[in-house]
Amino acid sequence: MGFFGDRLIEKIRKIGNPLCVGLDPYLEKIPPLFCDGPMTPNDPRTAEATKHFLMSLIDLLENKVAIIKPQSAFFERMGWRGIKLLEETICYARKRGLLVLMDAKRGDIGSTATAYAQSFLTEDAPLRSDALTVSPFLGTDTLEPYLKSARNNGAGIFILVKTSNPGSGDFQDMLVGGRALYEKIAEKLAPLSQDFKAPRTGWSSLGIVVGATYPAQGESLRNLLPNTPFLIPGYGAQGGGADDAVRTFVKGPAGYEGGIINSSRAVIFPEGGNTSTPKKWEAAISEALQQAVDGLKEALAQKP
Amino acid sequence: MGFFGDRLIEKIRKIGNPLCVGLDPYLEKIPPLFCDGPMTPNDPRTAEATKHFLMSLIDLLENKVAIIKPQSAFFERMGWRGIKLLEETICYARKRGLLVLMDAKRGDIGSTATAYAQSFLTEDAPLRSDALTVSPFLGTDTLEPYLKSARNNGAGIFILVKTSNPGSGDFQDMLVGGRALYEKIAEKLAPLSQDFKAPRTGWSSLGIVVGATYPAQGESLRNLLPNTPFLIPGYGAQGGGADDAVRTFVKGPAGYEGGIINSSRAVIFPEGGNTSTPKKWEAAISEALQQAVDGLKEALAQKP
Repeated sequence: MGFFGDRLIEKIRKIGNPLCVGLDPYLEKIPPLFCDGPMTPNDPRTAEATKHFLMSLIDLLENKVAIIKPQSAFFERMGWRGIKLLEETICYARKRGLLVLMDAKRGDIGSTATAYAQSFLTEDAPLRSDALTVSPFLGTDTLEPYLKSARNNGAGIFILVKTSNPGSGDFQDMLVGGRALYEKIAEKLAPLSQDFKAPRTGWSSLGIVVGATYPAQGESLRNLLPNTPFLIPGYGAQGGGADDAVRTFVKGPAGYEGGIINSSRAVIFPEGGNTSTPKKWEAAISEALQQAVDGLKEALAQKP
Repeated sequence: MGFFGDRLIEKIRKIGNPLCVGLDPYLEKIPPLFCDGPMTPNDPRTAEATKHFLMSLIDLLENKVAIIKPQSAFFERMGWRGIKLLEETICYARKRGLLVLMDAKRGDIGSTATAYAQSFLTEDAPLRSDALTVSPFLGTDTLEPYLKSARNNGAGIFILVKTSNPGSGDFQDMLVGGRALYEKIAEKLAPLSQDFKAPRTGWSSLGIVVGATYPAQGESLRNLLPNTPFLIPGYGAQGGGADDAVRTFVKGPAGYEGGIINSSRAVIFPEGGNTSTPKKWEAAISEALQQAVDGLKEALAQKP
């Protein structure tokens, strides 16, 4: 199993780009190609059509990206059939060599956090993933069950620090003794991240979430957390540019590195893409994927 | 459907106590009475045994408490079968007239928050509940989808403000311009809570979570949020006493009121309770329930 920090960074070096593709199955955006009726959330045919859509996507992502990020909410919306589909999606992707980062942003007190860790991170977890997003709001004691599970199962954690949404400043930017709350959180995480440093690459199995939409804040966080992989959402549809997305990357043995940059909608629901036949849909997805990858590669190559 | 604030408070007045029973099905604590083998999370027999346990519990809670609070994590731990069980549990409880507060502590950016709201709060949500716990950490823009769904579907929201765990002070107590972060959050929520005031009782459909383990902080929050129902976890097993639990309650037409006080383990897994036969188990649960109710009633009667 090894260390998540090593598995992630080594996989990115091998694949050659840091793109993470977010699987957010908006039911109303799935092309009619995959469904022969309305996509009602509680209808078993909806989960079936979504499965067909997701498996076809994963086939196109294999060997093109290191990691995918399913968003739990869109599966939960379909009830138990959605969770069954989520289990199948994780399994299908991992068998194809993709790392799976579960975006569930869980956060709860100790005993409940343990149950969440057992849902997503342990060997026998039904939704066993390579890593999980976690909220720090309840305090560092509530992170311990995830950290323990991560350590025992070679998994990773990405802790929310500065999120990509327009209102993320409401609380995360509040000034605490002259520093923003997100920086205070990063300060508390620094020793933990150091503890979780993976031996081969030196990158930690404890990561943080920093929106591509806040590049300056990202730089300040990189100074506090030099070996922490950043999950950078907001590239593409949310308006974050490639240059901003790679701002926190640092020189490594195979070029700049520093985490993963997520794009969801721009890749899996490309605007204006022709989706009338399977071949045309595949071409549209492959083109959107290539664009996202090329944008990052170019930004990394031109990094000052 | 009406307003959640009214439904909650009127139900509490009718039932005569503010106890909320938390349904946290720790698999290893479910009495052998309900299972004929080891409770392996992924085994279909585990979900069946847990269903039997929970339905039997709900039968004993009917007309004794106003509201129950299933903890999503313990269901997620069983994979899709756990979510199917959660759907059945909600349905069974609501048919018996119990209000259901889903404790899932969700929090995510706009479009994802909408998917969560559609999972738990809308008319067609697979896990349709009367109310949902939500994290404010990502900012007030991320609360809007839940508020919109709550408004359109007569549902409620309980926003985490000061949680019951020992480390909740790590970030929630950080001083921002002379006030604790949890107070700053409450200040931001005050106008929203006012907007959601229900017409008959004057209590809001927007509530907050305040641990019984922090009674002084609760008092300061009550000053900021006079019409906001508090969900007060930590009574019982977590060490919060009855007097502390009702500290933030205020005089109403039928005695002191102000929200709900949760006990999970102390009621559903009573220590030292004889669980060798169904009759004895029922007696043990009923006794634990009565103790929790009496403790609160006494504290309310003696409130200075």
